[in-house]
Amino acid sequence: MKLLRTGPPGAERPTLLDDEGTLRDLTTVVDEIDGRLLADHSALERVRAAVGARILPAVDPRGLRVGPPVARIGKIVCVGLNYHGHAAELGVPAPEEPVLFLKAPDTVVGPEDPVLVPRGSEKTDWEIELAVVIGRTSRHLETDAEALAAIAGYAVANDVSEREFQLERGGQWDKGKNCETFNPLGPWLVTADEIPDPQALRLRLWVNGELKQDATTADQIFPVAQVVRYVSRFMTLYPGDVINTGTPAGVADGHPDPKPYLRAGDVVELEIDRLGRQRQQLKDA
Amino acid sequence: MKLLRTGPPGAERPTLLDDEGTLRDLTTVVDEIDGRLLADHSALERVRAAVGARILPAVDPRGLRVGPPVARIGKIVCVGLNYHGHAAELGVPAPEEPVLFLKAPDTVVGPEDPVLVPRGSEKTDWEIELAVVIGRTSRHLETDAEALAAIAGYAVANDVSEREFQLERGGQWDKGKNCETFNPLGPWLVTADEIPDPQALRLRLWVNGELKQDATTADQIFPVAQVVRYVSRFMTLYPGDVINTGTPAGVADGHPDPKPYLRAGDVVELEIDRLGRQRQQLKDA
Repeated sequence: MKLLRTGPPGAERPTLLDDEGTLRDLTTVVDEIDGRLLADHSALERVRAAVGARILPAVDPRGLRVGPPVARIGKIVCVGLNYHGHAAELGVPAPEEPVLFLKAPDTVVGPEDPVLVPRGSEKTDWEIELAVVIGRTSRHLETDAEALAAIAGYAVANDVSEREFQLERGGQWDKGKNCETFNPLGPWLVTADEIPDPQALRLRLWVNGELKQDATTADQIFPVAQVVRYVSRFMTLYPGDVINTGTPAGVADGHPDPKPYLRAGDVVELEIDRLGRQRQQLKDA
Repeated sequence: MKLLRTGPPGAERPTLLDDEGTLRDLTTVVDEIDGRLLADHSALERVRAAVGARILPAVDPRGLRVGPPVARIGKIVCVGLNYHGHAAELGVPAPEEPVLFLKAPDTVVGPEDPVLVPRGSEKTDWEIELAVVIGRTSRHLETDAEALAAIAGYAVANDVSEREFQLERGGQWDKGKNCETFNPLGPWLVTADEIPDPQALRLRLWVNGELKQDATTADQIFPVAQVVRYVSRFMTLYPGDVINTGTPAGVADGHPDPKPYLRAGDVVELEIDRLGRQRQQLKDA
């Protein structure tokens, strides 16, 4: 299923995109697409039954905003340097174990919402990522099968990053990862049953129509199941948590000088096979 | 005012500790102590009026659990290496600008809840910190006065840290900062009007009755107002966000070998002037 949330910021309604491409109102079946829903197998079965029975009212897509597909995200865990191509373009060795950092859930916006270039920013960069949404409370997952079973679904994320804030201001990366609007997510949460192999997804990102990132998740240094297992050793994962699994080669920071960092007016488009497409216009904060 | 939340985990009720030391039920006046309340000046005035009118019912403290004082924390921003004494004990220079990292809100527990030693941990450490709770949406605060006005109140935090996970597993610190139960907070949210000078607070921490940390916030490299201003340049602060403003000298990691890391059965007690006292027993996860 393709689950999404549509409507004005802060007042999104649970919605479904059916196999015919029609948006359907889910509020007759569930209150919200959030951690509670993802942890509730019976609620998801009710959604499936309602889809099968074709009783969900259609939603007019004209002028409709799409929000992030999950409400009340608990935490966002990000994996740094998780594609061979990205490590190579930055001239750093592949990490021996996953590099983890956090992103605040308040950075999440919808897939077509504007992205703000922070005040004083000279180095705002893009990062297309496969986002994993957790559906089951998980500690110390031992096998890849357990890890995959803990995943509710997948979505497209743009892990927007300000490289000067991230790398040149001392200490940890977080200063450059948590600016307002820095985590577009969506359009859909595609349930895990529709993605049998998360290592076979093509990711592409364009800036002003020019293809900048083009890779597949087969290039991940630590595949999705291994990442989820690894994270569960250090922190407890809860339904509604998100893991951004890293970006492939092709970010602005990996270009020769002068690096093509983002400016107000630029348009970034992102697409992952079967997970849909995002489009953001950059604006000054 | 001293605001707190009492009751079983996940079902805490808003409570007040009055000047006579009596707990008072706040549910007749407010639903919850959270970001919405902290941002709502009129709601806080209603609480003050109810206190003044002495109409709040008393709560029996016997056997009552104290939870974290703020529900639904948005994000926790931590400042690393923010005391001269702590930088000195680790043998590192004072940072030129604040070192920031994030901690997941799901690590927060009440001030007397058990702290879990993670599976496989050899280096679980303590860190008493002055926590700042934000009461006003804030971007690019320009003056110290604006920064102090954005603070709803203060609380005691234990920024529990696993040093091997934090420092010896590659990459960022976050792996050692986000284990379950790693952020005891409370007992009280003391409103900012009762703390006229946040740089004049004594912090003390004991392990099994032995004094380990004893300093004042005057030793902070970047004082509270400067920290809040600095953070607001890189991320938007929202009501209910928390900033852990760093720990003074005296952590286990700053001791000579063999360093006295925490083990199941150990008892950690923490106290900050006017903000109350915490007590945690360590247990194996």
